[in-house]
Parts: sequence; C-alpha cells; structure tokens
Amino acid sequence: MTRLKRCRICKKEGYIYLRHANLPLCKEHFISRVHFVVQDTIKKYEMFSKKEKILVAVSGGKDSLALWHILKELGYDTEGFHIDLGLGEFSNVSKQISENFAEKHGIKLNIFSLEKELGSSMENIIEKSYEKPCSLCGTVKRHLMNKIAYEMGHKVIATGHNLDDEASRLLGNILSWQEEYLYRQYPVLPEEEVLVRKVKPLVFLSRKELLMYCKANEIEYADMSCPYSKGARSLVLLDVIEKIEERYPATKIRFVRGFYKLRERFKPSQYVELHKCPGCGIPTASEKELCRFCRIKERVKRDVLAS
Amino acid sequence: MTRLKRCRICKKEGYIYLRHANLPLCKEHFISRVHFVVQDTIKKYEMFSKKEKILVAVSGGKDSLALWHILKELGYDTEGFHIDLGLGEFSNVSKQISENFAEKHGIKLNIFSLEKELGSSMENIIEKSYEKPCSLCGTVKRHLMNKIAYEMGHKVIATGHNLDDEASRLLGNILSWQEEYLYRQYPVLPEEEVLVRKVKPLVFLSRKELLMYCKANEIEYADMSCPYSKGARSLVLLDVIEKIEERYPATKIRFVRGFYKLRERFKPSQYVELHKCPGCGIPTASEKELCRFCRIKERVKRDVLAS
Repeated sequence: MTRLKRCRICKKEGYIYLRHANLPLCKEHFISRVHFVVQDTIKKYEMFSKKEKILVAVSGGKDSLALWHILKELGYDTEGFHIDLGLGEFSNVSKQISENFAEKHGIKLNIFSLEKELGSSMENIIEKSYEKPCSLCGTVKRHLMNKIAYEMGHKVIATGHNLDDEASRLLGNILSWQEEYLYRQYPVLPEEEVLVRKVKPLVFLSRKELLMYCKANEIEYADMSCPYSKGARSLVLLDVIEKIEERYPATKIRFVRGFYKLRERFKPSQYVELHKCPGCGIPTASEKELCRFCRIKERVKRDVLAS
Repeated sequence: MTRLKRCRICKKEGYIYLRHANLPLCKEHFISRVHFVVQDTIKKYEMFSKKEKILVAVSGGKDSLALWHILKELGYDTEGFHIDLGLGEFSNVSKQISENFAEKHGIKLNIFSLEKELGSSMENIIEKSYEKPCSLCGTVKRHLMNKIAYEMGHKVIATGHNLDDEASRLLGNILSWQEEYLYRQYPVLPEEEVLVRKVKPLVFLSRKELLMYCKANEIEYADMSCPYSKGARSLVLLDVIEKIEERYPATKIRFVRGFYKLRERFKPSQYVELHKCPGCGIPTASEKELCRFCRIKERVKRDVLAS
C-alpha cells in the first residue's frame, strides 16, 4: 500500500483517500465532509426538518450506527428502533451493540422482537419456507418498520442504505427493467395514509466511507454478515459494481445520481391498482387478497397451531 | 463438461445447449432457430424488405460473416463491403477471409482501404493520437461506412453487432446515463438526408450462438482480436455482463429487450442542435466547426504534409 497523501485542505496527515473525488483528507476534514454530504442530501431531497423527530432504523451494523451518529452530530432529534430478528448469534450481537451505542450516547432505543410481533423467529420462518431468505426478511422488516413507526406516531423513518447498496440495487432493477421497483428507488418516499415517510440520507456515501467514519469516531458496530445472505443476488451485484468502480472510479455515484435525475421517466406506464390489505390495511399490489406480510403471518400462525 | 442433452425438437444428438432458454438443439434445428430469430428481428423492427439490396459491413470476424450467411440463406439480396483498416497482420487476415467467403458464396464484396480513403492507416492514426484507439477507429469506421453506402446509392447497411455487444454497450451507456447515446442504441436507425439506414439484425443472438453457427456452417472467420483492443472499456463491460449472465441466465436478453421497449423514454430532454459539417455535410453535434471525422482527416493531412 502506498502512503496516503496529505489532506487537501489543511495538509495534515491523510486519513482517507476518496478515489472517486481524487481527494485525500485528514480525519477531521473527512468527518466534516461526511456531515456536509448528509446535510446536503437531507436538504436537497427535503427529507425532514429539525422540528421533526426522526426514527432511525438501527440494525447494529456500520451504516445504521454511522447514520444515527451523524444525525445526532448534525443536531437532529432522533430515536432508534431495532428489530431483534432471532437469527441466533448474529441477532444477539447486533442487538447488544445497538443497545451499547444508545446507552453511550444517551439516546432512546426501542427494541422489538420478531418472535413477539409475529410469533416466530426469522430463522424459523426461513427454514420453513421455499422463498429466498433476503426476500422474505426484507418483506417482514419493511412491514414491521412501517407498522412500528406508524403506531408510535412517528412521521419519518431513516435507514442506513449507502451508495453501494443503492448502486447494486439499481443495477439489479435495471437489468430486469422493473418499472415499479425502479420508480420507487429514490432517497425519499413520501408518507401516504398508513405509510410513513422513508428516507435514506446516506445514499451518496460509500461503504468504505461509512466504515472509515465509524473508525474515526470509535463507533463499535456488528461486523458480521447475516448467516443467510451467502450467495444472495444483492451480494453478487455489489461485487460487480465494486469491480467496475475499481476500474472506473466515480461510476457508482454517477450511476445513482444520474438515475435520480431521470427517475420521473420511470413512472410505470401501466397503472397498478392497489387495494388495502384486509389484514393490515396497507396498500398492496398483491393479486392475492392478503399482502405478502400477512400471508407470511398466516403461515406462521398455522405452523404454530400445527406443532 | 457434461454430455449434451438430445435435441428438444427431434431427439437427435444435441449440438448446442441454449442456457438462457433452457433449450438443447441438434445442429439442424439450431440453424433453423438462428434463421428464425434473425427473420423475426428484421420483421419486428421493419429493417428492410426482400426488394431492397442490403449492404453488409464485413469485418471478417464471426459476427459479420454469420450475418452475411444468414441473410443469404433467408433469401435477401446482399452485397458486402470491407474496410481494410491497415492494422498489420490483423487487417491482412481479416481482408483475406472476407474475400474467401465472398468468392465461395459468389457474392460481391467491395473492398475499401483506409490508406486510400484517408491517406493514412489506422495504425498510424492511432500511434499519432492521444485519443483512445477504439473511440478513434469507431468514429472513422462509422463515417466511412455511411459515406461508402451513400455514394454507392445503397439505402441500408447491416452490421453484425450481437447480443453481447448490445448488452455491454447498454450497460456502459446506462452507468453514465448518456441520454443521447441511449436513445440512439436501437436495432434500426432510420435514413435521414445523407445518413443511410443502419440495422443490426443479430442483436438477439449471443456471441456463443454466432460462433456455433459459423462452426455448424463451416464458415471460416478471422479469430483474432484487434491488437489495440486490449484493456478497452467495452471488453471490461463485456466481461462483467458475461459474469452476471453465467450466474443468472437470460439476463442479457431481458436487459436488451426490456430497454428497447422503454427506449422512447430516453429521448433526450434537451434538444441538441445539430449542424451540417462543412467538410462532409453530415449532421454533427460537435461544438467545433468540423465533425470529429473531418478533424481526424485534417490532422492526417497535416501529418502527411509535415513528413
């Protein structure tokens, strides 16, 4: 490894080299830049104001803890919530680390357990299903996140999706040209009846930047992969995007930024009729009567009764 | 390598397994399928009719020779043209093989030499320029192809671009969201004043299919890479697309087909004013007075005079 160049701004010892911007920065100026990028994203996409309370979805990983830390540093009023998915050691560690962070910084963390909410752990649900783990878990998490926030009376949920997540998801959506998914991939999705506003303030910061942000601020995070993520499509696409970025720096940010600018063009041409799920009241495009979450819930109920 | 399954249609010995369609085929039914796919593409995109003479751009590689062979087999009236780029052994072999094919099948092949047309070989132009070889060569080839066809009185040029070419080019255009390039990536570009109609009848056939088509029909082709293509962005993207396809078969065809369907949405939002190049009369978006081709030509002229 070559020695890091000195900070472009103050000429002090370099902490990180941002290759996509050809920018070496010291620790202090790197932290300022991260804060600036996030504040700018919040403002540009009108995510929320300082008068609102932001509910931060905290998994215990580097992204969500960095997000929580940044929002706190920027002076936003936050509260965390963590869903204990019941994925063995992975979940235990994630929960503990989230609690440690909340305690250290004196911010409230609400903990929910999938076992309690649904009557089963994610481990059980996955083992008893033929569906792909990430897809199942995603559906359950998205639903619960919204439900929890809505019932708590919150107006906005912030998640830690980073640039790498966005770029790889975008690539996946584009390879199959899923108009519906494409249109919904945006840094902010507005509130609508029972749906709470969802925002992603970290979409312009890479995985590496968030990792280095945690390191710079001595944020302890769960450095484990979910035991069920192995071979997931999202990881394959992450790898692809990273390979292109290595070769052509700034590809990720141009790709994602360019898409957001053109996003209106992906408004689905065919209007998909939504109906309210009779189970939970959330609008769903599912052709079945119940939404996917409620169908999973029904299955869990049957399994519990049968055992 | 596992043994090939028997042909899905006649149960005879398998010749190829089309993974994206989960379809094993014998030699005979594979050839029929290739013909069917090309005929279908010609019809769907209204490329040309049997009453027109088609000018086929023949490089001597597998794609252009397969294209010429297929069009002949489908009963189209064709004539070939080959541009001798002057890239040493690579160009000599390519020209010889193109001539052999024309002679064997009794079809007319027009040969043009870059040296004669422009006063310099591509090798010379590349060596004396700081621009990327593939970009330079592409500009020169596209210009000459059009000029030759127009001056010969032809209405349509067919090129051998295959599915892999289209998918990787599309990926490149999308990663940088180049609206202008995106909109012009289509199987047919209509004639417009001095611009001849350009068609790509092989866009739904993969590199592998065209290779196996040549083999099945004992078509001898130039199996060499251009000496200047090493490290080209197009090859990096080809490799990326191939890796995704290996993992998720049918990605390429869905990606390209899906894009063609949505293509109208990529009509550039800002109208780019074109002007006629005072050198060649072709509409150009270049901000300089002369189009890029004419600027290259001017440079060559200066170099020749200076030497």
